[in-house]
Formats: sequence, C-alpha cells, structure tokens
Amino acid sequence: MKTTKPELTIVKIGGNIIDDTTALNRTLHAFSQLKGSKILVHGGGKEASRIAEALNLEPQMVDGRRITDQNMLNIVVMTYAGLINKRIVAELNTLQTNAFGYTGADGNLIISERRSVKDIDFGFVGDIKQIDTQQLVTILDGKAVPVFCAITHDGKGQLLNTNADTIAAELGIALSESYTVKIIYCFEKQGVLINTNDETSLIPLLTTSKYQDLLTIGAIYSGMIPKLDNCFSALTKGVHQVIIGNAAILENQNTKCTVIQL
Amino acid sequence: MKTTKPELTIVKIGGNIIDDTTALNRTLHAFSQLKGSKILVHGGGKEASRIAEALNLEPQMVDGRRITDQNMLNIVVMTYAGLINKRIVAELNTLQTNAFGYTGADGNLIISERRSVKDIDFGFVGDIKQIDTQQLVTILDGKAVPVFCAITHDGKGQLLNTNADTIAAELGIALSESYTVKIIYCFEKQGVLINTNDETSLIPLLTTSKYQDLLTIGAIYSGMIPKLDNCFSALTKGVHQVIIGNAAILENQNTKCTVIQL
Repeated sequence: MKTTKPELTIVKIGGNIIDDTTALNRTLHAFSQLKGSKILVHGGGKEASRIAEALNLEPQMVDGRRITDQNMLNIVVMTYAGLINKRIVAELNTLQTNAFGYTGADGNLIISERRSVKDIDFGFVGDIKQIDTQQLVTILDGKAVPVFCAITHDGKGQLLNTNADTIAAELGIALSESYTVKIIYCFEKQGVLINTNDETSLIPLLTTSKYQDLLTIGAIYSGMIPKLDNCFSALTKGVHQVIIGNAAILENQNTKCTVIQL
Repeated sequence: MKTTKPELTIVKIGGNIIDDTTALNRTLHAFSQLKGSKILVHGGGKEASRIAEALNLEPQMVDGRRITDQNMLNIVVMTYAGLINKRIVAELNTLQTNAFGYTGADGNLIISERRSVKDIDFGFVGDIKQIDTQQLVTILDGKAVPVFCAITHDGKGQLLNTNADTIAAELGIALSESYTVKIIYCFEKQGVLINTNDETSLIPLLTTSKYQDLLTIGAIYSGMIPKLDNCFSALTKGVHQVIIGNAAILENQNTKCTVIQL
C-alpha cells in the first residue's frame, strides 16, 4: 500500500532579509501562514561583520565564503545562534508559530566535519556529515517549527560555521524519506537571472542542461554556483521541489521565480 | 491510587563556573552522569561584560543585577543564548546527554513581563509570568535535556534578560506537579556561610527561622538575599529539595553544602 507522505516546506532566508527589519518581519509573517510542517533556515547578514569591525577584527572572505578563525567563530556563534536566531524565534512565537531555535549542536541534530585544508584553510567551517532525521521527525510531529541558524558542530565539542544554503539542502535530503519536501531559497532577486542587473532576464525554469549551458557561457558565477549546486543536489537526492526567488513568493505562490528541475 | 512522581534535577551554574573552562567541563561531565530527568540553567559570567567593554559599552550593575539597555540586551542575548549556551550544549552532546539549548522565547517556554519601573529602571529585564509546563514535560519525556540561558521574552517579540536563579526556581515550581523536583544551585562557595570569607562557617541546614535570624543580624546580604528568597519560594510552592553548594556536589553527594528547609 502506497501512502502519501506529508508535506514539509523548508524556507531559507538570506542576509538581505535579515538585515532589513521590515522585510524580515514581513517574511516571518508569511512563513507563519504556511500550512503543514515547516523549517526555517537563516543566514547571518551583515551583523557579524559589523560586530567584528567594532571589535577591530577584519572579516575575511574568499569566493563569498567567510574565513572563520577562533575569534570570528565566537562572533558568528554569538550573532547567528544568539542575536539573530532568538530575535526570529521571539517574533515567530508572536505569530502562533511554535518556533524553536537550533544549531546543529542542539540534540546533535546536524553533525559536520571541519573542512580539510586544500587550497584555502576556511578555519572553523563544517561540511555536513549526518542529520538526526528521527529526532527531527519527532520534533516536527510535535508541531514544533525548527529555526536553524548556520552553525553546526563536529560532535566532539567544536562548533562550526556552516553554509545556510547547504543546511537547507541537507535537511531536505535527510527528511525526504518521511516527507514530500519543498525547499524555497529566498534572496534579493526574483530568481536566477541571465543578467544579474536585469530582473526581466529571469529564468522561470532552470533544468540541469540549461544550467550547464549557462555555466559554459559564464552567465552564472561566484556565489550563485554553490547555491545552484545545492539545489540540484537536493533534487537528485529525493527533494520534491526546489525554488529560488524573492521572499514575496511566500505570500503569493504566483510570484515570478525560478523553479529548479533536473 | 497514589503514584510516585518521577525525579527531576534542576542544576543552576553561575558565572564562576562559566568563566573557568576546566571547572565548566568538569561540572558538565558530572551533570551528564546524573540519573533521571534533568535541566541545566546557566548564568552569564564575565564574558558579556568583557564584550561590552571591548565595544566601549559600560556595564551597569545595581545590587548585583545588570541594568539592561538595548545595546546591553543585544550583548547579553549574543553571549548567553549564543556563545555560552551553544558551547555548553556542544560539550554536553559529546557526553551522551541529549542537550537542547533554550531561551524562554523558544516554544514560548518561559514568558516574562518587563519589570515595571519603581526606584530603578532595570531596562529590558523580565520577571517570569508563565511557563509552558506541558511542552516541557513532553521535551523531558522525549529524553531531551533542556539547557536554559538567562533570557526569556514577553511573548510579544521582546527578549528580556532574566535572573538565572529565578529561572531555576520557577521551572522547579512549575514542574513540581509532574515531578519530585530537586534544585541544586552551584556557586563558588561550599554553601551559605555565616562569614563569607570562612568556609568553616558553613550552615549545613538553613531553615526559614534561621534565615530570618541571619537577616536580622545582617549576616546575609547583597546578592545572597534574592538567591535565598528564590530557594524558600521554590520550597513553599512545591519543590521537594533545594541545595546550595559547590559544583563538586554533583560528583559526590556527600560534599558539604547548605540544605534549604522550610
């Protein structure tokens, strides 16, 4: 007997939303209205860099990724898991959303491994190794709404900075056995654009072959590549649907966006 | 039919333990060995003050309590809910303790009210109004170990700095209906001393009448008074046992300490 899996929506919100209180509150309100099981994953925004600067620490970036030394790890943990995560949780809990803020360290929900040094030593950055699906299902069954920040740990006491896009993708993959998973990546544009500065160049449907073509002509580059790699990886490994778009899509499903498809 | 309630141990650790990595890890190890349901509540230590100082904010204290303006609230949330809470959670999860870090905002577990201004405006400081006992029992039944930092919220989106001793007492009171609750307050001394500088002046059993006597002669003062008021309040409202002592008591029950008794 084939049973239909329940639906799970995973929404990832990025720095542009986090940094704008009005946009953030509007997005959280829209998120609170989503039916069924749901998970929010949030990035960090500029707050960590601002605090690092105030403390005279120079934020270091390579290819849009932060280099995380011990001082920066402390700041990232404080900002992501403390300030931003708890602000979001407090706000969601005014909206009848039973939100619980998590890092991967909480309940060993997400265990990662410190990235090995190849060309670049990213410092205390983790690549996800294991997700406690069973415990997450229990949490979701209990009508709680997990809010994950971009921090995981190695299971040996070391917290690790972890890419929020990847967390959303890996959570989706791990939970695909129990749910029909939809991942919505919200960012500042309407979706994937052929020309970054031209919203009319939106690609409504991005397939694997189209993606390869765009990579070949260099139309997709920089931070967009790992983002899209995450999307395709999620779909390959069981996620039902992946969308990249503006947060407005949470309010109105007819909002223009990019649907990713194998 | 009278059924025996299961046991619940609530351990509160203070700043002296938080500030000393060796003491902290030893305490967390001892905590991980405690049998039955358990909750850890932690204070903040000096880290928030250090960060405030680095950011050129002057920490303000009255009667051992921090005055919390908006900037200080941000720092306290970052430090307590981010840095310290997640460090503790990551460490406990290496010790087969299924720890989950919480503020009161998570799942609306602890709702407080911003303290009204009388003589002193404490700023964003909350007095506890409501605890979601049902959800906490479900969490404890699921073999999770809550780790609470000293942050709650007002249920309307405002995070509030909240005394950790009071959180431990109020959690104990709220959970007394479902559990036989023991609260252990760990601090730097062996217990309540008649002479603060003389460990041999330890009071092994502090009753209400003895407490009144000591208050009258001025032997107990400053930060110790709200701490003891919390203890007696907890016992009055259903908590089975309250102990004040050194963290060593978690390792060896025969360690000298002060037992509080009505």
